[in-house]
Amino acid sequence: MYGSIRIEPNLHSKPLPNLDENLGFGKLFTNHMFMMDYEEGQGWHDPRIIPYGPISHDPAAMVFHYGQAVFEGMKAFRTENDEVVLFRPDQNAKRLNRSSERLSIPQMDEEFVVRAIQELVRVDAAWVPKKKGSSLYIRPFIIATEAILGVRPSMKYSFIIIMSPVDAYYDEGLQPINILVESYYARSVQGGTGNAKVAGNYAASLKAQTLAKEHNCAQVLWLDAIEKKYLEEVGSMNVFFKINGEVVTPSLSGSILEGITRGSIIHLLKEWGISVSERKISIDDIVQAHADGTLEEAFGTGTAAVVSPIGSLLWNGTPMVVNHGEIGQLVERLYTTITGIQCGKLPDTFDWLLKV
Amino acid sequence: MYGSIRIEPNLHSKPLPNLDENLGFGKLFTNHMFMMDYEEGQGWHDPRIIPYGPISHDPAAMVFHYGQAVFEGMKAFRTENDEVVLFRPDQNAKRLNRSSERLSIPQMDEEFVVRAIQELVRVDAAWVPKKKGSSLYIRPFIIATEAILGVRPSMKYSFIIIMSPVDAYYDEGLQPINILVESYYARSVQGGTGNAKVAGNYAASLKAQTLAKEHNCAQVLWLDAIEKKYLEEVGSMNVFFKINGEVVTPSLSGSILEGITRGSIIHLLKEWGISVSERKISIDDIVQAHADGTLEEAFGTGTAAVVSPIGSLLWNGTPMVVNHGEIGQLVERLYTTITGIQCGKLPDTFDWLLKV
Ligand SMILES: Cc1ncc(COP(=O)(O)O)c(C=O)c1O
Ligand SMILES: Cc1ncc(COP(=O)(O)O)c(C=O)c1O
Repeated sequence: MYGSIRIEPNLHSKPLPNLDENLGFGKLFTNHMFMMDYEEGQGWHDPRIIPYGPISHDPAAMVFHYGQAVFEGMKAFRTENDEVVLFRPDQNAKRLNRSSERLSIPQMDEEFVVRAIQELVRVDAAWVPKKKGSSLYIRPFIIATEAILGVRPSMKYSFIIIMSPVDAYYDEGLQPINILVESYYARSVQGGTGNAKVAGNYAASLKAQTLAKEHNCAQVLWLDAIEKKYLEEVGSMNVFFKINGEVVTPSLSGSILEGITRGSIIHLLKEWGISVSERKISIDDIVQAHADGTLEEAFGTGTAAVVSPIGSLLWNGTPMVVNHGEIGQLVERLYTTITGIQCGKLPDTFDWLLKV
Repeated sequence: MYGSIRIEPNLHSKPLPNLDENLGFGKLFTNHMFMMDYEEGQGWHDPRIIPYGPISHDPAAMVFHYGQAVFEGMKAFRTENDEVVLFRPDQNAKRLNRSSERLSIPQMDEEFVVRAIQELVRVDAAWVPKKKGSSLYIRPFIIATEAILGVRPSMKYSFIIIMSPVDAYYDEGLQPINILVESYYARSVQGGTGNAKVAGNYAASLKAQTLAKEHNCAQVLWLDAIEKKYLEEVGSMNVFFKINGEVVTPSLSGSILEGITRGSIIHLLKEWGISVSERKISIDDIVQAHADGTLEEAFGTGTAAVVSPIGSLLWNGTPMVVNHGEIGQLVERLYTTITGIQCGKLPDTFDWLLKV
């Protein structure tokens, strides 16, 4: 598929930084990147691993004007046995194709995408950090590159993968966050692009995120755009609640992203015999549960933080504190289990890891 | 403001093509472009007119990942006296700032933006075509250039202006188009970005546009995302109807773009003493008017085509033919008037033109 991956080593490699030091998130990049191009008639072609460096485009390239761009986010981990593994990369390849489909971007062979990721990680394997909780963040993305101003699907694309060593999201273990329930701005709506990982969704969310920060909140909890009532997701995370012993998460309404962490958590809960349901959850349900004292836990889930306990939800100017602002037992157990599997401390019972 | 505009002439200028020949839309670009950068702390700086050519970015530049990009579209015309004029450029500068505001992009001085456009057009004035109906399309746009993968507003941007000589939208005068009324896909929703000219809106619209083409329609007529009932706009145009002598257009609901052509048309109609109202218009209203025989005209309005008569609306599988599929009197008059003002054949009564 697409021919073999050509490797052009970076002759001006940066020295490996001290990966035990503060890495931040997505600031520092490895020495190589993967690239493959698409052209109408020719299909995807010329897969190559080349030195990390600037990419050059005509200023009329469609990505600059019409936002025809999709991406993925995933991680490689160094296990305790010093192996490098990927967490469910097949799921990311699948979702990438789903996102592409929504934006009229040509599909890619999913097995090839996984192989490309593996190859690239292999080339820069030294950049996968060892420190507990740290990892190599992998960012595959596709951009429309045809230089034409008519509004229609581009006939040229680049598929690129870049990688960045990142710290654990929470330096000192899990840390509850405050969340602003947003009722004015909308992230997405049925029939829109909210269930795809497309560039424009994130630009559209910036304004509300700034508002959240002004309210001393880490993220926004989006409500559905139609009734301004049903919970959708939290920033770049899906959201879960434990209410009266039952775990609930918003169903895939068509306007929220189907998180891979979300899927893994639902799977784990079922394995553990904990009742979990995907359904419509209104903000009123949460207010009620909070008032009743049955709102036991709340947390976000996503590749970046795995899980993020929610300490309080700011709604209509009033904070609803969850579990006294402390880390719940369930969120702790989920965190320990998933990160345990990722770093090889726990057995990979569900076949979630792929060796590089 | 921002210092004076430095000019670096293109020493490898392309020869001027024959502007009387087929130009297409947005394929061919002039010899220069305008560029200015922003950096947090420093503000907008280094305005310059430089040779048109590729721009280079780190693959982690935010525009590729999060779609933080806005743009404008406007035209320069060569009048019958061989003067070059811009049509209401102040309105585009204002809207650019409004779009930026929505995406957390720093504001720009609007007078400076107009001046930058004027200067650039002056440098490549030879590229403004003479042929009837043709013009120089001007595309100002802003992209987020900071190389970091965290989701937050970029701290670096480029503001760029490129220009492309374009043909009249309709080679042989106005031509009625077929429109598909789209009820599944959504372009935007209240609280979203539909009233801003942001890149992601256009990516989100591609899929429905492809559907329209499959139904032999030129464009999609969007319905509101909430009730799937109220008309919004048509592709890259606002929409107007003449029903029983009255002209109506959807009010600015928060999810449609405030077109500059729309504003000019409302102004003209009022000047002419023709009743025009901005209000909610449901698809049922149109079906009813069509059944009654009171649906006299329908047309789209935008910079590209000025006005576009709608010959038929495909709704629920059935086409509603408007005005026997012919060009209406009103749309013809509007077209003649606006293009007449633009090419200097009619007096610029409303001070819409700015000399370059
Ligand atoms: C909008 C949004 N929702 C949810 C998620 C969580 O998805 P995943 O668990 O696959 O990282 C992400 C991050 O990828 C996201 O961007
Ligand atoms: C979505 C959308 N609506 C309407 C318009 C019409 O606006 P204007 O008349 O300013 O060109 C445009 C084009 O600019 C557009 O992109």
